Amino acid sequence: MKVSTIESGEISKGASSPRKGMKRGLSIMDFILRIFAAMSTLGSALSMGTAKQTMPFVTRFVRFKVSFHDLPTFLFFVTANSIACGYLALSLVLSFFHIVRTISVKSRILLVFLDTVMFGLLTSGASAAAAIVYVAHYGNPSANWFPFCQQYNSFCGRISGSLVGSFIAVVIFMILILMSGISISKSKH
Amino acid sequence: MKVSTIESGEISKGASSPRKGMKRGLSIMDFILRIFAAMSTLGSALSMGTAKQTMPFVTRFVRFKVSFHDLPTFLFFVTANSIACGYLALSLVLSFFHIVRTISVKSRILLVFLDTVMFGLLTSGASAAAAIVYVAHYGNPSANWFPFCQQYNSFCGRISGSLVGSFIAVVIFMILILMSGISISKSKH
Repeated sequence: MKVSTIESGEISKGASSPRKGMKRGLSIMDFILRIFAAMSTLGSALSMGTAKQTMPFVTRFVRFKVSFHDLPTFLFFVTANSIACGYLALSLVLSFFHIVRTISVKSRILLVFLDTVMFGLLTSGASAAAAIVYVAHYGNPSANWFPFCQQYNSFCGRISGSLVGSFIAVVIFMILILMSGISISKSKH
Repeated sequence: MKVSTIESGEISKGASSPRKGMKRGLSIMDFILRIFAAMSTLGSALSMGTAKQTMPFVTRFVRFKVSFHDLPTFLFFVTANSIACGYLALSLVLSFFHIVRTISVKSRILLVFLDTVMFGLLTSGASAAAAIVYVAHYGNPSANWFPFCQQYNSFCGRISGSLVGSFIAVVIFMILILMSGISISKSKH
């Protein structure tokens, strides 16, 4: 809906072609989606990064507590989300440049490549964390791994929730790559 | 090196432009890389899918054995690799079509999108499996998960090795998406 409005706006203003208007519309969508993805990854990183729980009881020698950096996979998850968030914030500059200069092609190809790499990194972090969260919830009788979610309820809720933002960003990245493909195909006409 | 040979071959045969030759070169590279990726994923799926180990001792009630489908993540890994392998085999048709008809754009965008989805699926499977393999090797003292690789040595070697093929295919997918982006940008000139 947004795209078509911008498109017709472009035409009425006497832009060079409706194709240019469509490209600008895609670039604006790209810009907005990047902001959403950046917020999602930031939310995920913060949610996981601050997840910890201390049990209300202590024995003489041990205080029962758990934090995200007890599990290396969660550390990777926070790192991947932070890097993706930083990248998305930086890529806003290039995305804004594409709104202004619709004809640029090389910078779009660069963006597709970087998006693909970041998509891979984020999917990797999210899936690895999901695999561990699954074991934390259900355990694995064959490997004698017991679910720790029975004890650490609030911690588990937090880490499960933090996956959502990351997977939203993964879906947005897929849409961004598709949109870039369409934009590039409309270039230099 | 291959690309440049094909390119110059095209020119000498009086093709419409060197750009067309370059696109054909990229399409041929695309075709070859897809075959490699399909073999890598097939190898990974078979290697993980046939991984099992039975201990040489039995107690009265229990036979100690482990197989890949004792861990749901490994089942997902095999599924993801099988789907990616099937997709890659099918996409060879479209890739061959691009060698013959270099001007098609819409089918290239379709391929970029499907490649991105499959890249996501494969990365997801490989990373989730890697996270579990890590725990299998090193365990996690905080969660009281003990490494089962000390007992099941041969099984662990097999599942670790099967990750390699999957990650090779992940890298090939990244290259394929980049190459498609370049191909699309050279279209309709």
